[in-house]
Amino acid sequence: MSTARSSHQASIEADPTVPIIRITRDFDATPAQLMRAHTDPALFARWVGPDGMDTEILDWDATTGGRWRYVARRDGEEYGFHGCFHEVGADRIVQTFTFDGLPDDVALETLWFEDLGDGRARLHAQSLVDTFEGRDQWLASGMETGVDQGYAKLDALIAER
Amino acid sequence: MSTARSSHQASIEADPTVPIIRITRDFDATPAQLMRAHTDPALFARWVGPDGMDTEILDWDATTGGRWRYVARRDGEEYGFHGCFHEVGADRIVQTFTFDGLPDDVALETLWFEDLGDGRARLHAQSLVDTFEGRDQWLASGMETGVDQGYAKLDALIAER
Repeated sequence: MSTARSSHQASIEADPTVPIIRITRDFDATPAQLMRAHTDPALFARWVGPDGMDTEILDWDATTGGRWRYVARRDGEEYGFHGCFHEVGADRIVQTFTFDGLPDDVALETLWFEDLGDGRARLHAQSLVDTFEGRDQWLASGMETGVDQGYAKLDALIAER
Repeated sequence: MSTARSSHQASIEADPTVPIIRITRDFDATPAQLMRAHTDPALFARWVGPDGMDTEILDWDATTGGRWRYVARRDGEEYGFHGCFHEVGADRIVQTFTFDGLPDDVALETLWFEDLGDGRARLHAQSLVDTFEGRDQWLASGMETGVDQGYAKLDALIAER
């Protein structure tokens, strides 16, 4: 692991003018490998979320117009999530996202993978919601931990290949 | 038709703080009737869009996690639209929306139907996009005509029942 790669740290930013959270994170992986890690349910379940969380995929059709649903479990607690895939392209995914505990809140998520060459790529993720309050509550919920620990697991999965 | 019902005119508003368009429109219909007019593909095709536009449903699964796609034709021109249904509840629909001519632009649409009693209901529609520029271009595109003429056709369909 190269300590010079500070961009392996995720950047998580709140947009000042629209209720959007933007994440960027570099990986030692190609866009195609990152796409597979986000669309193959067995791979996705191995890295998504914070450490110690066990993810079970309940429904998964990562195609344009498809749907997804999974449950994450830790210490006897269970957290469900679901959404639909608006678009699954060559290097872009647009999907909706709802935490079952807040069923009225829906985020529109856009992910794309920028080729940096030399087998590296930058993940760009954008989460759009309909209020600044909802966006800021999400940011204050400790989401960074899940993002950082999840992407560290994804680094490890990629290194395994 | 009652001319006293000025709320049969759609209200179309741009939110000042988030890139949202909000529409409200009253109908002489129950929430269940409005839900059916938005989820039954044969009914939907009869009223959506401006006058003279012929709508063909190509794909339609109006259930939570389902998908939709249709094409509208007029004067030899063809306009395609598609999206997925994030949620189809008892009186609420959350779906994505893309005009095929602008494939990178995705709106997150939320519709709900408020019961006004006496067989009347108010439709609330919210369209969320990720930039104010995109939202304002959409507003400037003549969307009011499609909204007003479409809902007038829906009034007529309801009156037929």
